[in-house]
Amino acid sequence: MPKGFTLWFTGLSASGKTTLAERVRDILLERGMKVEVLDGDVVRQNLSKGLGFSKEDRDINIRRIGFVCSLLTRNDVVAIGAAISPYKAIRDENRKLIGRFVEVYCKCDLETLKQRDPKGLYQKAIDGEIENFTGVSDPYEPPDNPEVVVDTANEDIDTCVGRIIATLEQLTYIPAGDGRGYSDDEEESIKQRLRDLGYI
Amino acid sequence: MPKGFTLWFTGLSASGKTTLAERVRDILLERGMKVEVLDGDVVRQNLSKGLGFSKEDRDINIRRIGFVCSLLTRNDVVAIGAAISPYKAIRDENRKLIGRFVEVYCKCDLETLKQRDPKGLYQKAIDGEIENFTGVSDPYEPPDNPEVVVDTANEDIDTCVGRIIATLEQLTYIPAGDGRGYSDDEEESIKQRLRDLGYI
Repeated sequence: MPKGFTLWFTGLSASGKTTLAERVRDILLERGMKVEVLDGDVVRQNLSKGLGFSKEDRDINIRRIGFVCSLLTRNDVVAIGAAISPYKAIRDENRKLIGRFVEVYCKCDLETLKQRDPKGLYQKAIDGEIENFTGVSDPYEPPDNPEVVVDTANEDIDTCVGRIIATLEQLTYIPAGDGRGYSDDEEESIKQRLRDLGYI
Repeated sequence: MPKGFTLWFTGLSASGKTTLAERVRDILLERGMKVEVLDGDVVRQNLSKGLGFSKEDRDINIRRIGFVCSLLTRNDVVAIGAAISPYKAIRDENRKLIGRFVEVYCKCDLETLKQRDPKGLYQKAIDGEIENFTGVSDPYEPPDNPEVVVDTANEDIDTCVGRIIATLEQLTYIPAGDGRGYSDDEEESIKQRLRDLGYI
């Protein structure tokens, strides 16, 4: 029985990918699993120095993270990818390569992101100081059928994390935990989503 | 008790790195370990497309392989790196990053390599058709204190593999196997080497 899988967070800058990735990592580590987070920013240091933000360079970066996630996944490690990964085709390539692949779409409206703007990047992009900025001057293609959608503009972190964990439990990718971070209604809606996707 | 470590093959092109890496991998897989080979050529496709053979690009490539080996190693996987990795400082950086790091120097004299020349690369380098070719027009810095030295010009594959496996057993990085591919004299010389290096 394989233990590894890849949990892939996709969404615009500041949509909550890294925050959620780290929270989920901590929960899985507490449950005794092996986990590695491959965060877009960290990866650009260690795997992709020199790559820019053209479509071609972004695709190479996401393929590279996918390659490393595949090595970890097939060796019983939970690989958590957290990168904007704006292009659907490359995410789907990684899904195909890896197999056990759970996509989390971090949805967040642009107005909220502009208000958050922790690094001032949206303002710079709007002012034209940064080029190829996803969501402002570069495209983002949301997933058609992600296993999980979290709306980080309207849902708090615990709700988002609870839904991700519940989905992994329903998929039997992780054993059921003691506590439950989600209601009966939420559980039923997660099951319905996974039924619609043909998983259960 | 950690199970992961990195076995790092260094040496000139055609010195036997990949052949030995794959033989060792098969033995470790048979003993029930998790193993990944990160071969220089494969890695240049998946992690380092676009990098050339300048010192700077070589260093980036070797650091990248080291980063992936470290992720695997700390998750109980045996990572086997097989890349020319000509510069001592970068190999030592990887050793420091990874900790459980066993270096195998694939020694082979240039005359033998020129005769082997499976891809005709040495001839092209000598004719000036390829630049920056390690051992011909680019430097190779042998390790000062590798855990294992194999002389692939004068020792057959089984002897080389036997010495690598015996070293891993002596270091207790892998459990002792049933069969022994090495003599009492060889075992004593391996122990002596590891004593000299301060391991046992």
